[in-house]
Amino acid sequence: MSQKLFDNEIFFAAYRKLRSEKNYNDLLEQPAMRRLLPGLKGKAVLDLGCGYGCGSLFLAQSGAKRVLGIDLSEKMLDVAQKDFCHPLVEYRRMDMEDLSQLTEAFDLVYSSLAFHYVEDFLKLAKDIYRLLKSGGVLLFSQEHPIVTATMNCKGHYNLSQDGEYASYTFSDYGRGGKRIGHWFIDGVENYHRPMGEIVTTLSQTGFRIEALVEPLPEPWAVSEKPDLAKEYIKPTFLIIKAAK
Amino acid sequence: MSQKLFDNEIFFAAYRKLRSEKNYNDLLEQPAMRRLLPGLKGKAVLDLGCGYGCGSLFLAQSGAKRVLGIDLSEKMLDVAQKDFCHPLVEYRRMDMEDLSQLTEAFDLVYSSLAFHYVEDFLKLAKDIYRLLKSGGVLLFSQEHPIVTATMNCKGHYNLSQDGEYASYTFSDYGRGGKRIGHWFIDGVENYHRPMGEIVTTLSQTGFRIEALVEPLPEPWAVSEKPDLAKEYIKPTFLIIKAAK
Repeated sequence: MSQKLFDNEIFFAAYRKLRSEKNYNDLLEQPAMRRLLPGLKGKAVLDLGCGYGCGSLFLAQSGAKRVLGIDLSEKMLDVAQKDFCHPLVEYRRMDMEDLSQLTEAFDLVYSSLAFHYVEDFLKLAKDIYRLLKSGGVLLFSQEHPIVTATMNCKGHYNLSQDGEYASYTFSDYGRGGKRIGHWFIDGVENYHRPMGEIVTTLSQTGFRIEALVEPLPEPWAVSEKPDLAKEYIKPTFLIIKAAK
Repeated sequence: MSQKLFDNEIFFAAYRKLRSEKNYNDLLEQPAMRRLLPGLKGKAVLDLGCGYGCGSLFLAQSGAKRVLGIDLSEKMLDVAQKDFCHPLVEYRRMDMEDLSQLTEAFDLVYSSLAFHYVEDFLKLAKDIYRLLKSGGVLLFSQEHPIVTATMNCKGHYNLSQDGEYASYTFSDYGRGGKRIGHWFIDGVENYHRPMGEIVTTLSQTGFRIEALVEPLPEPWAVSEKPDLAKEYIKPTFLIIKAAK
């Protein structure tokens, strides 16, 4: 992930505003991720693409004995150090593509919505497998492949005559690779991988897939943010739990 | 599967015509399935929803010591007995929902494009797991969840101004359950299960997912049937290989 998306001033300000409002991460992705977390008591955790560190802090507060949160963005880590510090959490600036630099072993490798920025998923899977203790768990979320599919990043919902969200249109699902789109700013890069590539790569690396989740919002979340009902049309997130 | 779709006269005639022409099964699904087949030498195989029996025959010719092909349709089994008989293949009329009647153990449970007709996938997965020997393999294909998603079965491709296939529109992915649509005749029932439900059900039953494939056509297949290039827009089939 060579782009420093989260260090771009305009992107950073817009992203920070998004995360301060009612958002899909807090209402949909995080509840689903937390349901899948293994017991954390006494565990060593690696948080890949930790961003602000809210996930790392939660993991430490939930009993982990140590959390190493890595992220590429200085700005995100500045916020993490300031607002999400904890004696058991260490934040370190590092690219997810440089995991070979790490030598310690972890019980859990956790990553929230970061893997779609990584170009070489096989390398990432192998690095994570190496860093996990036997019986250790990988739990990650990413954008759903239906969302990342369209080459110009312009998959879109269609409205009915009544103005209700009715369907979703996409393309290029079978063409894996880089996508360059607009998210607050132009030129945001991510990588589309079809579901089969993700699952089969993990399996061939040695992981046992324990759960594959396309989260649906709970009723309380839809009443907080009615837009979440769109998840019944097409999924936004993919979550996978896999064991070594 | 209470419907006797394949015993309907009009459906049967139309389906037989389809299968006699250049079709998605022969050009896309079967090549992908065969790449995933384990070694068959001396193996006992169960073929679920064997239809005409062309799969059962292939499995026997590929070295299996015994193939039991089951199907609900008398008409399909009549063709199987007549055109696809083999001394090592037994065809038996049986509903996939009645697998508890079987007591012998198999090395491979194989199924081509039949599981989307089954209402209770958890029961099916448990039945198959019980019938497999330790180390045995389940290999199946079904309609891709993107295809089965839309409630009225009217997911559709969209054409560009030049008349080229450009994108695919669907809905209701998050709403699992029965779909009733038109395929040669009205009232054809199948069951939509999101990807997460399929994979997690298999995993929780005890299977280890070895491969999840959304097949893309090889160049020779596209030159036989140019329509297959649509697979790069959205997948038609889902194939899973899982081990006990």
